[in-house]
Amino acid sequence: MEAYLDNSATTRVSDDVKDIMVKVMTEDYGNPSSLHMKGVEAERYIKQSREIIARTLKVSEKEILFTSGGTESNNTALIGTAMANKRKGNHIITSMIEHASVSNPVKYLEKQGFRITWLPVDRQGRVNPDDVKEAICDDTILISVMYVNNEIGSIQPIDEIAQIIEQTKKDIIFHVDAIQAYGKLRIYPKRQKIDLMSVSGHKIHGPKGTGFLYIKDKTKINPIIFGGGQEKGMRSGTENVPGIAGLGVACRNADKAIDDKIEKMYGLKDYFIQKISKIEGTQVNSLNGHDSAPHIVSVSFRGVRSEVLLHSLEDRQIYVSAGSACSSNKPAVSATLTGIGLDKELLDSTLRFSFSTDTTKEQLDYTVDVIDELLGKLRMYIRS
Amino acid sequence: MEAYLDNSATTRVSDDVKDIMVKVMTEDYGNPSSLHMKGVEAERYIKQSREIIARTLKVSEKEILFTSGGTESNNTALIGTAMANKRKGNHIITSMIEHASVSNPVKYLEKQGFRITWLPVDRQGRVNPDDVKEAICDDTILISVMYVNNEIGSIQPIDEIAQIIEQTKKDIIFHVDAIQAYGKLRIYPKRQKIDLMSVSGHKIHGPKGTGFLYIKDKTKINPIIFGGGQEKGMRSGTENVPGIAGLGVACRNADKAIDDKIEKMYGLKDYFIQKISKIEGTQVNSLNGHDSAPHIVSVSFRGVRSEVLLHSLEDRQIYVSAGSACSSNKPAVSATLTGIGLDKELLDSTLRFSFSTDTTKEQLDYTVDVIDELLGKLRMYIRS
Repeated sequence: MEAYLDNSATTRVSDDVKDIMVKVMTEDYGNPSSLHMKGVEAERYIKQSREIIARTLKVSEKEILFTSGGTESNNTALIGTAMANKRKGNHIITSMIEHASVSNPVKYLEKQGFRITWLPVDRQGRVNPDDVKEAICDDTILISVMYVNNEIGSIQPIDEIAQIIEQTKKDIIFHVDAIQAYGKLRIYPKRQKIDLMSVSGHKIHGPKGTGFLYIKDKTKINPIIFGGGQEKGMRSGTENVPGIAGLGVACRNADKAIDDKIEKMYGLKDYFIQKISKIEGTQVNSLNGHDSAPHIVSVSFRGVRSEVLLHSLEDRQIYVSAGSACSSNKPAVSATLTGIGLDKELLDSTLRFSFSTDTTKEQLDYTVDVIDELLGKLRMYIRS
Repeated sequence: MEAYLDNSATTRVSDDVKDIMVKVMTEDYGNPSSLHMKGVEAERYIKQSREIIARTLKVSEKEILFTSGGTESNNTALIGTAMANKRKGNHIITSMIEHASVSNPVKYLEKQGFRITWLPVDRQGRVNPDDVKEAICDDTILISVMYVNNEIGSIQPIDEIAQIIEQTKKDIIFHVDAIQAYGKLRIYPKRQKIDLMSVSGHKIHGPKGTGFLYIKDKTKINPIIFGGGQEKGMRSGTENVPGIAGLGVACRNADKAIDDKIEKMYGLKDYFIQKISKIEGTQVNSLNGHDSAPHIVSVSFRGVRSEVLLHSLEDRQIYVSAGSACSSNKPAVSATLTGIGLDKELLDSTLRFSFSTDTTKEQLDYTVDVIDELLGKLRMYIRS
């Protein structure tokens, strides 16, 4: 049996996404900027995807900006708004457990003279809204908090933070990295008073190299890439039409019967947590139930190095992550796992299991059985 | 008969490019940052493409940076080097006929305090190397000149400019936008003393949303997108593995029997120029023979608006561009056509015909015949 439980790293592209991309690449391959029919055809795919995506979020089509992926969405959101609003203030608030595609642009902005407040998280990996309130000053221009943490699945108090902004300093721009949340939670940025929201295609069975940024109408933001003026000047470069078409299909799929899908994944999560918790020396770092995301379970295995366990699982066709796999190969201490105060000795003994709607109970049974078997052996080696 | 003569806007994705992308999207869909086998498999595709591309240019693999396309390559080259070298100087030299993905980042840098020299071109659309020599000062850090102009196909004196840099101020970084040149001319950046060179995938039958930047080893350059540290920190974001795999195949195809392909396209160009010149009231703005690129012919049609002719051709399944189609729909006066001193009344009467190796003589015969027929009618309407 194969069990791909690394869906938070990336997902398989679904067949209908692949099909539309093949069609666009080989038949409707025009450049949307061309004035002739082949250009108009290509433009139509972009329009369609924009409509689909806007509908899933209940926002306006003109509020969807296509990008080359989640990282570019986050970079555009952060650098683009910081630069556009620097006359209004130079203070930015974010959390200590953001993905590198948020924390590193923020560090870049720090070097450019912006002042950053890095909010801590509690043992469940959640920002305290009171901390946000306390951090807000007269010169705060931007708050960026992720929706779902990519390593342990904690859900941030997005609505509470939005309310605090509303009550204390309305003109602060609120950015939410929803790369691990879109398709896994119901999200309506307008109702939730989110100004900017980043989404990635390849986390939802869409193509790599695609993503979008929701930009609330009238939000002051600069582009970070300049050229031919595509996407109303906000993102130059010939549009990745096949990718955008595929992204549209992936978003439509993610949104279809979303409540059932979410419940299915919550069912899988609770089932998995219950079973894995019975194994001696395991510690589940994710909350069960609806207080954390439906598709991510972080588990520490006392006395076993995560890399060793990961490769042993790989031999049995079970694919998981050691901490987070979204950043490049270099091993680094996880800001999230340290942020939630995980025992030092467990930092290097933690795996992330992440599901999709394709995941089955049988795969989880198989995974738990194999881990149980492997742990016995691996711990024996360590003792001897 | 269909004649797609807009290959400088974009090209059809070739079947083997599509095939490898489908395989990567649906079978080998791992995240290269994942430590398990599926990640290693994905990483292998990237490595392979890098090897292929490096080989076509006779450069080292580590000198190839994958990007989301030509526009990002140009932005990285310009903004990345300007920012990394601003302590050394603040003067940048470029030409008046660059593509918007060069001229607009340069204008952005101008706003950031850099001083720009915009070099004029002669009636054939070529920069005069003496002008480059004269423009170089003590604080010049960067020269950016395109290899092949996208509107008229003029070839810039790249080797002469490189020699001037070598002789006057060796530490100037020389960037070449080769988006219309790669696959159409033999280019060896190391031998030609080019430091940075931009290439786009979708101009060579590869996927949209892909490209690369050649960065000569030890060139001082900053990233413009920050995050997980992929591409040795120079371009964060999960790699677009299917796109990169497709780009590799497209580059291998472009390089295969390149001399024969170039000669084939030169044959087409000269054939087309000869035939179209015979029609009354036409003016060919591209040089024939090897003094300009093999695949681009710009023609002005006295007394006819280009858009009208373009759409009339479209009705006969002939697809061409009015000026350049690489920038977004908004009509703007072409910097290239004004730069070469084209008669004002011809600015709006100019079409670009651009070929690929798939173009046939029959398609060109058909195109010229249709134009001949249409011009008679269209000019009649105008007179009446």
